[in-house]
Amino acid sequence: QHYIICGFSRTGRQIAIEFRAENVPFVIIDSDLESVQIAQQKDYIVYQADATLDETLWKVGIDRAVCIVAALPSDAENLYVVLSAKTLNPKIRAIARASTEEALQKLQRAGADAVVSPYITGGKRMAAAALRPQVMDFVDGIISGTDRELYMEEFLLDPATCPFVGQTLGEANLRAKTGALLLAIRRASGELIGGPTPETAFVPGDVLIAMGTAEQLRALNKVLGPINSKRLRRPRKS
Amino acid sequence: QHYIICGFSRTGRQIAIEFRAENVPFVIIDSDLESVQIAQQKDYIVYQADATLDETLWKVGIDRAVCIVAALPSDAENLYVVLSAKTLNPKIRAIARASTEEALQKLQRAGADAVVSPYITGGKRMAAAALRPQVMDFVDGIISGTDRELYMEEFLLDPATCPFVGQTLGEANLRAKTGALLLAIRRASGELIGGPTPETAFVPGDVLIAMGTAEQLRALNKVLGPINSKRLRRPRKS
Ligand SMILES: [Ca+2]
Ligand SMILES: [Ca+2]
Repeated sequence: QHYIICGFSRTGRQIAIEFRAENVPFVIIDSDLESVQIAQQKDYIVYQADATLDETLWKVGIDRAVCIVAALPSDAENLYVVLSAKTLNPKIRAIARASTEEALQKLQRAGADAVVSPYITGGKRMAAAALRPQVMDFVDGIISGTDRELYMEEFLLDPATCPFVGQTLGEANLRAKTGALLLAIRRASGELIGGPTPETAFVPGDVLIAMGTAEQLRALNKVLGPINSKRLRRPRKS
Repeated sequence: QHYIICGFSRTGRQIAIEFRAENVPFVIIDSDLESVQIAQQKDYIVYQADATLDETLWKVGIDRAVCIVAALPSDAENLYVVLSAKTLNPKIRAIARASTEEALQKLQRAGADAVVSPYITGGKRMAAAALRPQVMDFVDGIISGTDRELYMEEFLLDPATCPFVGQTLGEANLRAKTGALLLAIRRASGELIGGPTPETAFVPGDVLIAMGTAEQLRALNKVLGPINSKRLRRPRKS
């Protein structure tokens, strides 16, 4: 149930900061001695090895990992890591870095579950800061960072444990029960219902996207799955 | 009332795509002939010049511009552009790219209104894709892109034109009137009220952060400022 970060350059270091802030167990792979030493100084678990070798991936427990993040400098190496990881553990979630639009498309075709291009993301982020400064400040503040007041979190409705499946939003009345604000519902079909109304009904497999304080989201998690379903996520920090 | 993009490399190109998608008037400055030609092929207004020269900034109307985006490859040049722009037009909004945490802090000290580091942003984005895939899909889908169903928008409450200043959220009843969902209120003091309740009151200078379809946000804009205040933003695409 751990995460694997391949590449401990600037991007990889930021990923490690975020993972540690949320108490996610993870290991780092990097072939460069200097990077490995920096990781050791920060008390991260790190292997000096080539992440494109199956042998390396076995050593860091690829078969038991939930997620691998390919943040190597080369697009070709990231593609190789994604393909290897998905072969060794078809259930693993693979996130990859791409430096170009072309690489982004290739990584998606290779089976990456999410691909991030720092240039594209950075450009979008700068445009958004120019056009909607308050919206971006708000979103940045609830998406990452270690001293957040507000969080956004996702909750999978498990019909076995969730008492609200089949009810409408108005009947469930989650806002009054928890204080958390329901922003959207992602149906199992992929359909997104943004800003659901009191008439919207919950169905099995819905993923709820909610916003609130850590306390409010913990309360929401509790009412959604009283038997404490393992499939429900919880904010890891308070 | 135009925007200026300094640097038409990968980041700058993404910024131009976002600006065009929202019909924002902008000019590009780049000293490299090849980049200038690529910009011309896309029918952008582009000047081949050195953005660190005051002369160049005057030529692109720095005194009348609302915002300048410094996306040059060098942190030192971006710092220089921010300082020059703020000197020539103290009211301009300046967004800058930084490649390191150190440069980020220097650019903030130099007066940049927002600083984006593609490596840090990219790393945060990858971590979020690993930890909260649905939340990130949702946020990406409403923050940028040309084929959005949902938008997030900010609205400044102008006491001269807004009939709701002094009322509570419950009295104003904006959700029923417009369909848009109010996510947060940023007070003029800087205080952020996330997920405001029906008891929360609107005060002059509040910025509302709302989510909805283009139609819902247009309706919200209309009820917030019936005289069509210039200070209220509108989504530029439908
Ligand atoms: Ca990296
Ligand atoms: Ca650039």
